[in-house]
Amino acid sequence: MAEKKKKKLQKLKARLPRGFVDRSPEDIRATDRMMAAIRRVYESYGFQPVETPMFEYTDALGKFLPDQDRPNEGVFSLQDDDEQWMSLRYDLTAPLARHVAENFQTLNLPYRTYRAGWVFRNEKPGPGRFRQFMQFDADVVGAPSVQTDAEMCMMMADTMEALGIPRGQYVIRVNNRKVLDGVMEAIGLGGEENAGRRLTVLRAIDKLDRLGIEGVRQLLGEGRWDGGKEGEGDFTPGAGLKSSYIGFVADTFLNSADAVDTKQRIASEKVRQKLSLPRQGLLGGSMQNPTYLEGQDELSALEDLVLSAGYDADRILVDPSVVRGLEYYTGPVYEAELLFDVVNEKGEKVQFGSVGGGGRYDGLVKRFTGQDVPATGFSIGVSRLMTALKNLGKLDDTDVLAPVLVTVMDGERMSDYAALTKALRDGLRTDDAFVPVEMYQGNWKKFGNQLRYADRRGCPLAIIQGSDEMGRGIVQVKDLIEGRKQAQAIESNEEWRETRPGQFEVPVRDEKGDLDYTKLIDAIRERLADHAAERAGAAG
Amino acid sequence: MAEKKKKKLQKLKARLPRGFVDRSPEDIRATDRMMAAIRRVYESYGFQPVETPMFEYTDALGKFLPDQDRPNEGVFSLQDDDEQWMSLRYDLTAPLARHVAENFQTLNLPYRTYRAGWVFRNEKPGPGRFRQFMQFDADVVGAPSVQTDAEMCMMMADTMEALGIPRGQYVIRVNNRKVLDGVMEAIGLGGEENAGRRLTVLRAIDKLDRLGIEGVRQLLGEGRWDGGKEGEGDFTPGAGLKSSYIGFVADTFLNSADAVDTKQRIASEKVRQKLSLPRQGLLGGSMQNPTYLEGQDELSALEDLVLSAGYDADRILVDPSVVRGLEYYTGPVYEAELLFDVVNEKGEKVQFGSVGGGGRYDGLVKRFTGQDVPATGFSIGVSRLMTALKNLGKLDDTDVLAPVLVTVMDGERMSDYAALTKALRDGLRTDDAFVPVEMYQGNWKKFGNQLRYADRRGCPLAIIQGSDEMGRGIVQVKDLIEGRKQAQAIESNEEWRETRPGQFEVPVRDEKGDLDYTKLIDAIRERLADHAAERAGAAG
Repeated sequence: MAEKKKKKLQKLKARLPRGFVDRSPEDIRATDRMMAAIRRVYESYGFQPVETPMFEYTDALGKFLPDQDRPNEGVFSLQDDDEQWMSLRYDLTAPLARHVAENFQTLNLPYRTYRAGWVFRNEKPGPGRFRQFMQFDADVVGAPSVQTDAEMCMMMADTMEALGIPRGQYVIRVNNRKVLDGVMEAIGLGGEENAGRRLTVLRAIDKLDRLGIEGVRQLLGEGRWDGGKEGEGDFTPGAGLKSSYIGFVADTFLNSADAVDTKQRIASEKVRQKLSLPRQGLLGGSMQNPTYLEGQDELSALEDLVLSAGYDADRILVDPSVVRGLEYYTGPVYEAELLFDVVNEKGEKVQFGSVGGGGRYDGLVKRFTGQDVPATGFSIGVSRLMTALKNLGKLDDTDVLAPVLVTVMDGERMSDYAALTKALRDGLRTDDAFVPVEMYQGNWKKFGNQLRYADRRGCPLAIIQGSDEMGRGIVQVKDLIEGRKQAQAIESNEEWRETRPGQFEVPVRDEKGDLDYTKLIDAIRERLADHAAERAGAAG
Repeated sequence: MAEKKKKKLQKLKARLPRGFVDRSPEDIRATDRMMAAIRRVYESYGFQPVETPMFEYTDALGKFLPDQDRPNEGVFSLQDDDEQWMSLRYDLTAPLARHVAENFQTLNLPYRTYRAGWVFRNEKPGPGRFRQFMQFDADVVGAPSVQTDAEMCMMMADTMEALGIPRGQYVIRVNNRKVLDGVMEAIGLGGEENAGRRLTVLRAIDKLDRLGIEGVRQLLGEGRWDGGKEGEGDFTPGAGLKSSYIGFVADTFLNSADAVDTKQRIASEKVRQKLSLPRQGLLGGSMQNPTYLEGQDELSALEDLVLSAGYDADRILVDPSVVRGLEYYTGPVYEAELLFDVVNEKGEKVQFGSVGGGGRYDGLVKRFTGQDVPATGFSIGVSRLMTALKNLGKLDDTDVLAPVLVTVMDGERMSDYAALTKALRDGLRTDDAFVPVEMYQGNWKKFGNQLRYADRRGCPLAIIQGSDEMGRGIVQVKDLIEGRKQAQAIESNEEWRETRPGQFEVPVRDEKGDLDYTKLIDAIRERLADHAAERAGAAG
């Protein structure tokens, strides 16, 4: 007895590791379809796939994880048997840089590539925050000109529309890291020794959406209490800028974006017009510097390029509040933002926000090769984009058909049912389509279980052949969808037994008595076509 | 100078971690196509996708890694911040068992699922032996009958044929673990205390392909020198069976399979006939036991089922030498074997061998739930199957089109080239097809670089518009495929310059002088259709 109890206590608990999830059929299918649509856009721009493994040597990945101040925090790492540290990739950009450097001699530059894959973050999981998630990236390596960044922005806009997101519900926002760096220089945060404080400033600006202008001002200065008021929640130390610089940064990056929300802005600016602030606008007089001017020139050139290809400000918008948190960006940065409202965990109505972004990172391959290798690219957060499409009702799941179920009435005739199942599967298959057909594989003795199974799977039809039907050379076809509909109108059990809604007989032997499934296959096809027509009618 | 040198020495080396690989566009595309074909077969049997994450808690994975005697050897593991050990999955079966146990109350049984995914082995890498590889599994949970195992074998056979592997070049070999266990009992290796020796015997039998009958005999007895002769290479200790039992095991499992090779066997047995050895055949008289007889009965029932569904012994073959190394199998085990010859690393001609397999594992979910949950399934090694298809010339790569390249002749007119590129991409897109079009993004000043790029990418056409063409309202279309062909017939540089093989002009302005790409789009379509027809002609 004690032995038994001990055994029971030792039973393993089946549980997912924290921050990881299983994926349902619906999620897998919807994601596959979404990714196929994205892939078509990327391939139509001449991009081709390449994939790297989940592991890289830790030193090759570098220390570029967004929102992580300390090296290797947020990464899953382990030591190989030769003592070398390996890490699971936390994004798809650092591994691409390694791939490019390793194969530099044989690459055909400019190298246009895309890849989708799982990435890992060793972080505290939370709602909607997972430790394994999928990214879908596109990059061009070996293309130095802003023309390539412009193309990336256009491709992002095309991607949003290919997924059915209507114009006006998304915008690609663009800025240039050189503009930001120029401002940093102007307020005395240039040079390598200020890298940490610079990052604090950039991240503060990046939080405008979440914290509002006052919260960002606090983070630029002394710091901010997470609860919003003194003493509430934890205290996050700020960048320690002096107050005139805080005002300057806020004027430069925040007010213009905050004054009118993006959606109103692009609605009022749908005309083909150039929106870049004038060169003098942001950084006037003595505070100007070459970095800043170069950034402004690039932004202006990018705007010319996208406008002339027909992408107006309602699709690609220059916006000084775009920051992107990663240290490695060196030029244009861009972000795809969805503009429709959703309700967040707190029940507040908020704009959906970013589903992906990227920028130019000319220094990342150089870490390996020692020479400048221009590169630009962006990453889409696949799960986040999926959530957005769900919210917009743009997930297409019409083409998934549940199986036709061949039921079992007699355990002695398993071989016959197996043969019937195969005959139907083969007969219903064409060159470019198939109908799933399965034979019930559970305990067949309770027929109710079989129909319950069919119901829960959403099977459209069940095929039934007991000894009576066998003797008469027929099968019963039970139309489960029609049956459910008719059953709702039926009042008594008796009536149900008499009318047997949605059930009909089909002969499976020819005149000579030989097996012949032609009529059955035709009947199944016909019913499935009826169902499809009804679904289309209901949807339209 | 010293500083500079130090910097250089500190440069990171770009290298893949040992045992991991990058995947090329060709490999990714071919694999995607192969997996789509497999998925169609599984879905036509009513299977639906489900996916688990890369990580599981280490205790949930268990100690079932094939060819690893010690617990957790061969697994990548790390400790989470709450001290729990997590491991990267080494196959897709153990995580499925966890998924089923965790969701048992809501699953609709029998649960038919498939999933493809990366798995990880922390092993010494070698030729064709990677530490990250892809498996493609199908399983049915909650189906206790041998009928389900029979269906799995048929689905494996269908999968081979859907991939274009001709009948006679593959066979699904079937055995039953109960037959093996019965024999183990008979030679005194029953019970939990003999689990280790039993595994050694099973693994020895499993190595028949590689070591031949004499090598296996040594592993059943004292052990074997890896070099084949005493003192050569390492010594692998054997199961220590006494010699009469060695003879018995060899007679039972090895001789029949070894006497005639499988290919000859199935060729001579193509008639519809039942091949199971008679019940008395293997284990006669006093050595028989209930486990053994049950296994024989199940094998016989499985054979009946597949034969009646039309799968003869040339497709699904009962074969007593099939073992499958994993401890957790409890009933039928099956293996997909390819029968054509390939040349191995040593230059020897060998049969291609296994590309996947599986079996019934009724006890795996029970580890969590404490109650019996019948389950059966198999796993396909995706890379290995890819290699097989490559060998058979069954990889289809005809539908990948390299991009049309819009070249750049004038840096001042980038916007025009970008607009032209977009117009062509949009104009060439239809509802169900697209033509990749890209604008050259590298350093445009050396036109030779642009053509070299186009050549290396295999671009079919290049679009050229310099100031002369601009002024005349035309573009040049360079047919790179035609050009290469004609160039072979051209003798001098002069002749080349004069004839400009494969190049022609197309107007891009209408009579009023407005831009109009209709003629250009038609011309591109026409040329691409010509190329496709030529490829089809060459292939046919």
